[in-house]
Amino acid sequence: MAYPVPTYPLYRVLAGLLNCTALEIPFEADFSLPAELATTGAALTIVCNPNAPSGTWISAESLAALAETLNGILLIDEAYVDFAADDCVDLVERHDNVIVLRSLSKGYSLAGLRFGYAIAQEDLIAGLMKVKDSYNVDAIAIALATAAIEDQDYFKSNIEKITTQRQRLTERLRALGFEVSDSHTNFLQARPRTGSASAICKRLAKRKVYVRHYDAPGLTDKLRISVGSAEQNDRLLAALQEILTA
Amino acid sequence: MAYPVPTYPLYRVLAGLLNCTALEIPFEADFSLPAELATTGAALTIVCNPNAPSGTWISAESLAALAETLNGILLIDEAYVDFAADDCVDLVERHDNVIVLRSLSKGYSLAGLRFGYAIAQEDLIAGLMKVKDSYNVDAIAIALATAAIEDQDYFKSNIEKITTQRQRLTERLRALGFEVSDSHTNFLQARPRTGSASAICKRLAKRKVYVRHYDAPGLTDKLRISVGSAEQNDRLLAALQEILTA
Repeated sequence: MAYPVPTYPLYRVLAGLLNCTALEIPFEADFSLPAELATTGAALTIVCNPNAPSGTWISAESLAALAETLNGILLIDEAYVDFAADDCVDLVERHDNVIVLRSLSKGYSLAGLRFGYAIAQEDLIAGLMKVKDSYNVDAIAIALATAAIEDQDYFKSNIEKITTQRQRLTERLRALGFEVSDSHTNFLQARPRTGSASAICKRLAKRKVYVRHYDAPGLTDKLRISVGSAEQNDRLLAALQEILTA
Repeated sequence: MAYPVPTYPLYRVLAGLLNCTALEIPFEADFSLPAELATTGAALTIVCNPNAPSGTWISAESLAALAETLNGILLIDEAYVDFAADDCVDLVERHDNVIVLRSLSKGYSLAGLRFGYAIAQEDLIAGLMKVKDSYNVDAIAIALATAAIEDQDYFKSNIEKITTQRQRLTERLRALGFEVSDSHTNFLQARPRTGSASAICKRLAKRKVYVRHYDAPGLTDKLRISVGSAEQNDRLLAALQEILTA
């Protein structure tokens, strides 16, 4: 399998469990798709879109072009897509090698339910069914997931709360001097223009404000900040202000 | 892997999915353990106990002796153990190569919950955790399974209903001329002394009474009959009486 990095670290773990070679191709500096991803010859190419932990988005057109070029399967992991302005589900109709994965753990706030699903053309799903465990998701999880998906008003009001706070937090962090890429998820990637991301992360933790710093290629100079409630975001911003002016 | 057959057919399917060689060793005619099972050299030996579809029981002493002899792991699948008079969970304390599997799908009547668990020594569980998916069973299934296990009065009254009906059905089938082995599950294995098991199965189906007939070695001359309610069992017995005297 092949996938651009940095991305969701479980792909590497699952490849290891299955004795599968994982080709990790670095994203471009702006988190656009690396050209090399189209020519790896991998049976399975994974693109997490929106990507974690960068929060960045690859256009449906770019992924359609990639699907067209690949001989293998293109798996688009849309775990965070509910926070994005677009999605790639339409690709499934035109590309018989595309699988779109969805989860109720993020946009529906139902991580405890462990409910996800795949969307692909019939032949591809039939192939997956051959190796699927003969038992399905539990009956209660199916009933709850169905009810959650049916209640689109509640879902949309939750998404709007988060995207409103995301916009506000992005602007305030930029005003504090951070370079913040446009986020299509429920977290932000923020690069301090001065000072080390790792040091800021530790100072925030001392103030009991917890953000993520990854000591990994492409991420060492950045923070990953979850979008919280207005109060939580204010507390983060106040702590950052203190740290930066200290 | 190695396991005695006939048994739960999913072992073969899972072995196939994992490109694992499955050594299938026929049970003795009375469904006692075949001696050959101890000398296969398999990394994993599975014994479904009580066994499906025979409903028969291997004593804890026999399985302790097997665990002692094997170099590999002995997995005892106790899916049906709630209907048996004994269990093998004590073997885990004395044998570091034994795993006992349990399910809430049978004795707790919670098949829709898809909840199971494994019992083994700490080192063996640590090894399993290395290859376990990083996500656990869903939060609601855990809460419901916990509540179900805590309510032992309800559980025991359900088990008693089934074992009472099982005893009655066993005696009535024997009176009708069937050879019925003592069942340790919620189903019976019944061999007609005259006539073909397959023909009886078809005639029952015409009367909308559904039992199982497996066209597999060791099973072609037998029926697998689920223990139903008193009314369901009476309907089965009446239909059998009709068929046998026709």
